[in-house]
Amino acid sequence: MRNIAPSASDNGESLVVDFHTSSVLGKYPAKQHALRVVEQLDVKEGLIYLPGAVKALLEDSDMPVPFRQRRYFFYLSGVNEADCHLTYDIQQDELILWLPPIDPVRVVWVGRGSTVEEACDKYDIDESHYSRDLSKYIEEWIKSNPGKMYLLHASQSARPSNVHLLDKKRVDFGKLPRAMDYCRARKDPHEVGLIRKACNISSAAHTAVLRNLLHYTNEAQVEACFLEHCVAEDAKNQAYEIIAGSGSNGAILHYVKNDEDFGDSQFMVLDAGCEWDCYASDITRTIPLSGRWPSEEAKQIYDLVQTMQSSCITALRPGRRFLDLYFVAHSIAIRGLLKLGILHNGTFAEIWKTGTSRAFFPHGLGHHMGLEVHDVSERPITAARQNAEMAVPRPSFSGAKLERMSTTSDADLAEIDMDDLTKIEQFGLTPELCLAPCDSESNVLEEGMVVTVEPGIANTKRRSYFNRFALEQLYLSNPSHSRYIDREMLERYMPVGGVRIEDDVLITRDHFEVLTTAPKGEQALKIIRGEKPCREGVTLR
Amino acid sequence: MRNIAPSASDNGESLVVDFHTSSVLGKYPAKQHALRVVEQLDVKEGLIYLPGAVKALLEDSDMPVPFRQRRYFFYLSGVNEADCHLTYDIQQDELILWLPPIDPVRVVWVGRGSTVEEACDKYDIDESHYSRDLSKYIEEWIKSNPGKMYLLHASQSARPSNVHLLDKKRVDFGKLPRAMDYCRARKDPHEVGLIRKACNISSAAHTAVLRNLLHYTNEAQVEACFLEHCVAEDAKNQAYEIIAGSGSNGAILHYVKNDEDFGDSQFMVLDAGCEWDCYASDITRTIPLSGRWPSEEAKQIYDLVQTMQSSCITALRPGRRFLDLYFVAHSIAIRGLLKLGILHNGTFAEIWKTGTSRAFFPHGLGHHMGLEVHDVSERPITAARQNAEMAVPRPSFSGAKLERMSTTSDADLAEIDMDDLTKIEQFGLTPELCLAPCDSESNVLEEGMVVTVEPGIANTKRRSYFNRFALEQLYLSNPSHSRYIDREMLERYMPVGGVRIEDDVLITRDHFEVLTTAPKGEQALKIIRGEKPCREGVTLR
Repeated sequence: MRNIAPSASDNGESLVVDFHTSSVLGKYPAKQHALRVVEQLDVKEGLIYLPGAVKALLEDSDMPVPFRQRRYFFYLSGVNEADCHLTYDIQQDELILWLPPIDPVRVVWVGRGSTVEEACDKYDIDESHYSRDLSKYIEEWIKSNPGKMYLLHASQSARPSNVHLLDKKRVDFGKLPRAMDYCRARKDPHEVGLIRKACNISSAAHTAVLRNLLHYTNEAQVEACFLEHCVAEDAKNQAYEIIAGSGSNGAILHYVKNDEDFGDSQFMVLDAGCEWDCYASDITRTIPLSGRWPSEEAKQIYDLVQTMQSSCITALRPGRRFLDLYFVAHSIAIRGLLKLGILHNGTFAEIWKTGTSRAFFPHGLGHHMGLEVHDVSERPITAARQNAEMAVPRPSFSGAKLERMSTTSDADLAEIDMDDLTKIEQFGLTPELCLAPCDSESNVLEEGMVVTVEPGIANTKRRSYFNRFALEQLYLSNPSHSRYIDREMLERYMPVGGVRIEDDVLITRDHFEVLTTAPKGEQALKIIRGEKPCREGVTLR
Repeated sequence: MRNIAPSASDNGESLVVDFHTSSVLGKYPAKQHALRVVEQLDVKEGLIYLPGAVKALLEDSDMPVPFRQRRYFFYLSGVNEADCHLTYDIQQDELILWLPPIDPVRVVWVGRGSTVEEACDKYDIDESHYSRDLSKYIEEWIKSNPGKMYLLHASQSARPSNVHLLDKKRVDFGKLPRAMDYCRARKDPHEVGLIRKACNISSAAHTAVLRNLLHYTNEAQVEACFLEHCVAEDAKNQAYEIIAGSGSNGAILHYVKNDEDFGDSQFMVLDAGCEWDCYASDITRTIPLSGRWPSEEAKQIYDLVQTMQSSCITALRPGRRFLDLYFVAHSIAIRGLLKLGILHNGTFAEIWKTGTSRAFFPHGLGHHMGLEVHDVSERPITAARQNAEMAVPRPSFSGAKLERMSTTSDADLAEIDMDDLTKIEQFGLTPELCLAPCDSESNVLEEGMVVTVEPGIANTKRRSYFNRFALEQLYLSNPSHSRYIDREMLERYMPVGGVRIEDDVLITRDHFEVLTTAPKGEQALKIIRGEKPCREGVTLR
């Protein structure tokens, strides 16, 4: 039952994956993922063991826990079934899927998982067995092999009941997650295909919302429309809870209640993306609810965020440090808010030093995306190492560089070398703002990475927790920030609520490709107003 | 911060709840539920402790576990927030909600739970505190009170860290679940109101599916339409996974893949119901996909199931044993299948004895419904005690009774006294069929109970696990059953697939009230064909 499809190792060549050929299998390339992980582990022998997610009932209930496959397990198996296990014998190059035995009584009620034969046909594995033989297999492997067992967590050693028999020195918990995080951050074409499919469905679902928006009066209807489109396209799971926040709700970062009437809100922030085959999409659009720009102020804030985003996206390519683009976005935000008069009473350089723009753009610029919407990587790209940052001092920095940042064009801004800025790890860092990113270890972009780019500007008061706790408590009550914020202008812009725009971008060999095509700006307005008819269910590309 | 609303105990009267006045509070009647539970516990002192569901992240992920409140906790609190605890001091008549402390940094991102002040306003409790004081409260309660602590499970004694200090004799795990199951099975008007709301939204969602059905070609579109309607009405959670099975998929009892094209299927089984405020609804309709009866055979099977259901519903009232109606349904099934010629070669009594009708109606007639779609009760109504049944012998039974069952009218059938039938615990019971109900301890209906009535007839071959494992392996290959099944007729009825019809019924003081109004039969056909226009979003009553 060895798989016939050749794997990279069969011809003795390097295990390095060629990003441009790895999807020829048609199946999810589990075996190639195993080989990539072993290359990162940098060992010649050993046994990788990964348990899949189990079926379980909710406590005190006969309802099942919603099933969600463990992502590390999926990455090495491509299997989205319950109660499976996976082993990979590194020396023998043998990837084995262990399936739950089939119980005829349960089958009558809920159907069943794959048989051993079906699994060998469906999945890119070498062998498949029922899991009753797993313990024996591991016991024999331990006896007849000198290598280590590689696990994700100490807790997972209890799953195959005999791992505890193993000498502790022969069990390794640290190397496997690091190696897998490295591989998972760099997507192969098969993975990109799944992400692309999720992005296409989500883009079309966003478009469906625009098309129907003038019929809606409540956030729940928007959530329902988005969900309906995804489920009808067979994308049953959302990659995260849908955020459909109108008016000031758009300024609560993870607002998921989605049950308020639009009232006199100007914008809705719709942050929603489905999964396809366990891979995520993640799209945010800020939508003028009337189908027209509700005010000059609203258009100004929208345009500012759009500029922040397009400047950052255009600068994406292999070799760029993602964190630098976070600084680009903040530079544009400071310049824009100064121009609008919301920030005042200081120069670009002065406001940069205090980091006051964080009052309006309090989150990171984006994140890796893949099997998780906030996907893993061996190093953070922006918003990680939260606690480590809290102790960082605020050192001096280059005045000449800031002068250039305050005067150069938006397009050229992204090309300024930010190395010294990030080396000095500054930018108005205070313990209260520890959730914001500032990590000089942040990842440099490489081909195959998929990242989101999602700048935002939020300023609002009514019932917004962001405002009450962040804007007021952290900024307006702090003289070093409040002197730069024009409260009168702030009031004028309050009705705008929050604006955030987010797309998913693939880093290609030379540059980038935006995977999300949900309409924005003028194009979105035309669809809302029915001036740009779209056929039902068709994905806009 | 004592609640001002009078509770039944304030005037020293009996704690027995008057089903007709208990919803005057407007709030979820948590305090009355506590009093009812204590009445069942039949103790004068002690402390009830219940933990609520906690917020948690999925393993190896930054995504949250979907939040679902513990139903026992909700029953005594009405609180659908995370990380809470509840105590009820029986002697002091003091119901206290313990809330998680509010963390300003998290609030910026995800909002927050109620403050102590908000909780006292929203919920029917006596006091509210932040949970950091819970351990101290319990410690002091243990010192200054001689009573027991009542918990649901031994595992929950670890939650407030000091319960382990308590002498084991002072902790009781057995009485509380029994007392709560008893109370939960008998709904008060406030609970009925929540169930009614869920039933109304689900009924309208079923109607929406009918209205749009002729535009659909795939099961996923039906699931999407149902979901869209519920979510738009702010019913964000389904009470169970939607089952939308066309053709033979309709014969898999818990089919949830919902991704196949209709093809030439005649019927779709749509089993779907949303929750409202943690209370379930549960509706099954079997829908002719073309909007017309697809064949004479299809209409015959549909009519048979409809008769089974209406005969059973009409017979519901306080004092009836629900299990008796299960026998009524089987009696009608046997008579009908004999008439159609699918069963042959034997008398009613002979086929009754072998239980061959279970090949076509393999599940129970219904279940309690409330905070769980399959709600708890102190005794089962039909489909419980699965394993206990397996050892039951097949004793003799009354021939005269069976004779009467085979000849009386459908309407009168339900009035036959089935006592001796159920006492003798028979009806073709074999170990393979242990999931089917046969429990002489089954509950007698009382006012306030809400039950589902969901008979079905399924007979199909193509890719149906029900058929492959149950019909073929358990019946057709068993001569004592197969002699009564006409295989040629079976083939003729194969294209029908599965038919199941399910409604939710409240047992009233004298009789019953059907809570679900989703159209069926001819009425449904007219809506599918657009002959009976319904306004968008309006619940049919």
